[in-house]
Amino acid sequence: MTPEKWTLRFGATISSAGVVFRLWAPRLRAVQLLLLEQSPRVLPMKSEDSGEFCLFVPRLKAGSDYLFVTEDGRQRPDPVSRSQPQGVHGPSRVVDPAVFDWSDPGWTGLPLKDYLIYELHVGTFAPEGNFESIIPRLPLLCELGVTAVELMPVAEFPGGRNWGYDGVGLYAPQSSYGGPAGLKALVDACHGHRLAVVLDVVYNHLGPEGNYLADFAPFFTDSYRTPWGPAINYDGRGGDGVRNFFIDNALYWLTEYHVDALRLDAIHGIFDFSALHILKELAGAFQAEARRLGRLAYVIAESDLNDPRIIRPPEVGGYGIDAQWHDDFHHSLHTSFVADTRGYFEDFNGLPSLCKAITSGFVYDGQHSQYRDSRHGSSSQDRPGEQFVVFTQNHDQVANAMSGKRFSQIFSPEHQKLAAAVLLCSPFVPLLFMGQEYGETAGFYYFTDHGDPALAEAVREGRRHEAGPFLADGRFFDPQDAATFARSRLNWALRCRSPHAEVLAWYRDLITIRKRHNCLHNCRKDLTTAKSGAAGWLVVERSDPAGSSALLLCNFNEQTLPVPLPARCREWSRHAWSRSSVYGPVSTEPPAHMYSGLSTSLELPGISAALYIAG
Amino acid sequence: MTPEKWTLRFGATISSAGVVFRLWAPRLRAVQLLLLEQSPRVLPMKSEDSGEFCLFVPRLKAGSDYLFVTEDGRQRPDPVSRSQPQGVHGPSRVVDPAVFDWSDPGWTGLPLKDYLIYELHVGTFAPEGNFESIIPRLPLLCELGVTAVELMPVAEFPGGRNWGYDGVGLYAPQSSYGGPAGLKALVDACHGHRLAVVLDVVYNHLGPEGNYLADFAPFFTDSYRTPWGPAINYDGRGGDGVRNFFIDNALYWLTEYHVDALRLDAIHGIFDFSALHILKELAGAFQAEARRLGRLAYVIAESDLNDPRIIRPPEVGGYGIDAQWHDDFHHSLHTSFVADTRGYFEDFNGLPSLCKAITSGFVYDGQHSQYRDSRHGSSSQDRPGEQFVVFTQNHDQVANAMSGKRFSQIFSPEHQKLAAAVLLCSPFVPLLFMGQEYGETAGFYYFTDHGDPALAEAVREGRRHEAGPFLADGRFFDPQDAATFARSRLNWALRCRSPHAEVLAWYRDLITIRKRHNCLHNCRKDLTTAKSGAAGWLVVERSDPAGSSALLLCNFNEQTLPVPLPARCREWSRHAWSRSSVYGPVSTEPPAHMYSGLSTSLELPGISAALYIAG
Repeated sequence: MTPEKWTLRFGATISSAGVVFRLWAPRLRAVQLLLLEQSPRVLPMKSEDSGEFCLFVPRLKAGSDYLFVTEDGRQRPDPVSRSQPQGVHGPSRVVDPAVFDWSDPGWTGLPLKDYLIYELHVGTFAPEGNFESIIPRLPLLCELGVTAVELMPVAEFPGGRNWGYDGVGLYAPQSSYGGPAGLKALVDACHGHRLAVVLDVVYNHLGPEGNYLADFAPFFTDSYRTPWGPAINYDGRGGDGVRNFFIDNALYWLTEYHVDALRLDAIHGIFDFSALHILKELAGAFQAEARRLGRLAYVIAESDLNDPRIIRPPEVGGYGIDAQWHDDFHHSLHTSFVADTRGYFEDFNGLPSLCKAITSGFVYDGQHSQYRDSRHGSSSQDRPGEQFVVFTQNHDQVANAMSGKRFSQIFSPEHQKLAAAVLLCSPFVPLLFMGQEYGETAGFYYFTDHGDPALAEAVREGRRHEAGPFLADGRFFDPQDAATFARSRLNWALRCRSPHAEVLAWYRDLITIRKRHNCLHNCRKDLTTAKSGAAGWLVVERSDPAGSSALLLCNFNEQTLPVPLPARCREWSRHAWSRSSVYGPVSTEPPAHMYSGLSTSLELPGISAALYIAG
Repeated sequence: MTPEKWTLRFGATISSAGVVFRLWAPRLRAVQLLLLEQSPRVLPMKSEDSGEFCLFVPRLKAGSDYLFVTEDGRQRPDPVSRSQPQGVHGPSRVVDPAVFDWSDPGWTGLPLKDYLIYELHVGTFAPEGNFESIIPRLPLLCELGVTAVELMPVAEFPGGRNWGYDGVGLYAPQSSYGGPAGLKALVDACHGHRLAVVLDVVYNHLGPEGNYLADFAPFFTDSYRTPWGPAINYDGRGGDGVRNFFIDNALYWLTEYHVDALRLDAIHGIFDFSALHILKELAGAFQAEARRLGRLAYVIAESDLNDPRIIRPPEVGGYGIDAQWHDDFHHSLHTSFVADTRGYFEDFNGLPSLCKAITSGFVYDGQHSQYRDSRHGSSSQDRPGEQFVVFTQNHDQVANAMSGKRFSQIFSPEHQKLAAAVLLCSPFVPLLFMGQEYGETAGFYYFTDHGDPALAEAVREGRRHEAGPFLADGRFFDPQDAATFARSRLNWALRCRSPHAEVLAWYRDLITIRKRHNCLHNCRKDLTTAKSGAAGWLVVERSDPAGSSALLLCNFNEQTLPVPLPARCREWSRHAWSRSSVYGPVSTEPPAHMYSGLSTSLELPGISAALYIAG
């Protein structure tokens, strides 16, 4: 997997003498290369072992456009195309990976527990909707305090508007975003700002339009089903080449684009019954290459399996994935604010669920799930906090579970601040979804730009059906309508206005505090306790072996509530408190009765949180 | 899973006051019980939580026949019926599990490494074709030296002739074999003869005729595919009840029938992506109940996954299955006798494969398999030898891979003896298929007795197609023809005739030697070496920490061959050899040059084996 220096074997490989084209196409007996020069040339490729085709074209340069022509005359882009300047159906372009002038040689990445992720969608983050337009806004993210930028998928997708999960050109950064050069410039700028880059990649299905992979090789199987299309053939006949295609893809982003982490979309849609699970092989290859490069780099999975095997090390039978999304935390927090029985929310009962999510990880670790009508999950107690990415919002939770509405469109700024406190005081890796830090008022809707009207209609109806139960006010925005995309863009001017500016300040303060105190950013869920009361209070205690402690008191009730003080408050001396920081709506000093032992509770206003640091 | 004493909750449970009927049928809103008394009675069942229906019928006795009647009038046997006296479509009969008078209270089972398994098919073993007729023949098995009897599946199947893999009454021992009383008498007699009982159970699909489970509950899923029918729904909606059904089944055979081990048919057809794999849960429940009962009992899997996770303990991420079939050993040995590229044999290259199978376990532990067109397997080096069941023949290998022909119909008695030596000197748990010990001349063909002519025809054509490449002489026996079944019966008279008696004596001797010497039965594959030469020799060395050693020299060539002697031969003194046993065609004494160091090889006649024990 890791030779001297990993390089991409397939696709178009450039050298001073010309370009080598290499294609894995065991389904074809003959392939021709179509070079789209002023006078287009058609050149037969040489058939090699194991279904590979190869051709060296002397004197060819970067920037040349080409297609592969199958034996029955179909013209297809390269499955391993580095660039699709005219979109998913158009020709592939030869790219010289050496041409970009990286300025990040000193960058080696961040420890996972220091990740504080900001998820963004390139098309709707800035008005220009491309890679380049993100760069001038990176200082804002640095000042907010986040340490990593997570890009929703950027692999070439049909049209100009898409979440990215319909990508089909898996090696080609989206042309309308700015293509390879644009993405490299963005990653380089992130590293210049000391921001890690997480790239969302989709290895469970391909988009429904422009997916030509099956013309070349057995990429898909009908042995398993996914909700999004045919499953990828990881364990069937011809599966080795398919596995290599996706492992190569992971290594490609690491090496040619310097990304620091991959976020693997919905791995519960990846089916592999072979003795070496593709996730284990892929994570192992990625981590080995990162080690070889002397970089800290990670594979993070989105998984709804609640299966700790995903994130356990191989020594104890795990797949060795570094971290995974912690959906149960989100659902628990959501139902702490509002009783909700729509969809998966029916499985969560608010604060008691939240306490378990904070201290144990998975809330469902073997119990019967009503929503799934089956037992669900296995205990994640043994897994450290930095293996879980938590969020109060993300693209899916906004758009899918809330019919496009953000938390800030449903809940007050005080609710937002309370949610932020729980998120940022949790012993996990926090993730913010773009705009949540200032209570963005734009929704985030599902949008597409399919070329095929029948497909567009099918997507429209599918989404309408899916959104149905979540459409509180009955509004449904047509995914294919350009206005739906425009409606999802961030409103940058809001950041400076009340009450958005106050929400933003609160986020910034909380992040500063989290980063300052070991007891908050140590991700030690084993040194974390969480208790709640039916009246609506939540008390989270964090601590650090070095001695510092944090106490988060929360009132989820609309009314003022006495929140019980843990016994250890009385152990902390006046002196300890005086050296501590205090944040929240109560006062700027720790109230005397917190350490006097005269009171066992503290009155908190409705929907508020107070954070005390001691020791 | 394991209350005070495990008892079956579902089906008909008898007490002094009457019978409780309990049914899991979440797909039905109403169920009636039809009691087939002189004047049939129809009684409405009470609907309870979680889709259960229940009814107590006072004064009802064992022996009563009943059916469940669905809301639309279908009359169905009990999914958990203990007896189907009139076959798969007929009524269920109430059985009192307490009625059998067990005589085996002193029996607690055997260590797995002492298992020496004899696989038999109840219908064709003895002329009578039932449980009872096996009992008088058990002394023959004891004298042969085997320690465990493995029964091909006995769950009620359609008609009177079937391998057993078409079973649908999974709790009802086949009526034509003698039903519950017959099976209990057989198990009890086996234990009386100090023979463990392994029962083959099918948890990956149900037979195509008389399968009414889906009328009651979501037993099947279309998320996955098996070659034999719809996959069992272990991880989908309603899957908990399905899992319980199969776990209960395993515990039922352990507790009500005293079986010592289960052989799980083709677990590569069991699909479960949940965080607690059904095999792990099932094995854990089975082993816990066995411990509670103070018995040694095991779960053995048939698996073609070459995945050591199946047999690793849960502490290192395994499923905790006790052992699995070792197909690679079979395929390696077969191709050591004859170059064969039909089906999976194409992946094996004879003696080199065999050496790896003997010392490592899986031959395919990550390499590309031509037959599968994908990489296959993962290393089983860490697993001890007693976790692998090996065979030179079994029902599948005879009938499927050899178109019904036994090894003894294809190869000479000398070939049979050589194969037996490799089998019985291997560091694994050996399994013999009934009749191989005396070179039975009857084939073992696929046979069925379906009631539905269309199904019978489909099975006939399916088998004809499958057998095609393996039909050396073009003969195909119609599965549905009673003569095919009759043709598969053992010929008991052969045992006493030459050359069968000589083969039998050779088996008996080898088994005696294996049982006498630790170095042979210790299952220490880590203390085993195997080397081969292109000329056709194989040398296997076994040893034991206590000091004894075994040396097996084999000549797979038709010509006499010098077989190289390992260096350690010269370390062993004259004295050591004189205390040793010598078996084989060479001489009854160890030849002087074996310890003199004067020669580095020993001449062996074509197709022969010699076994030396020292120390």
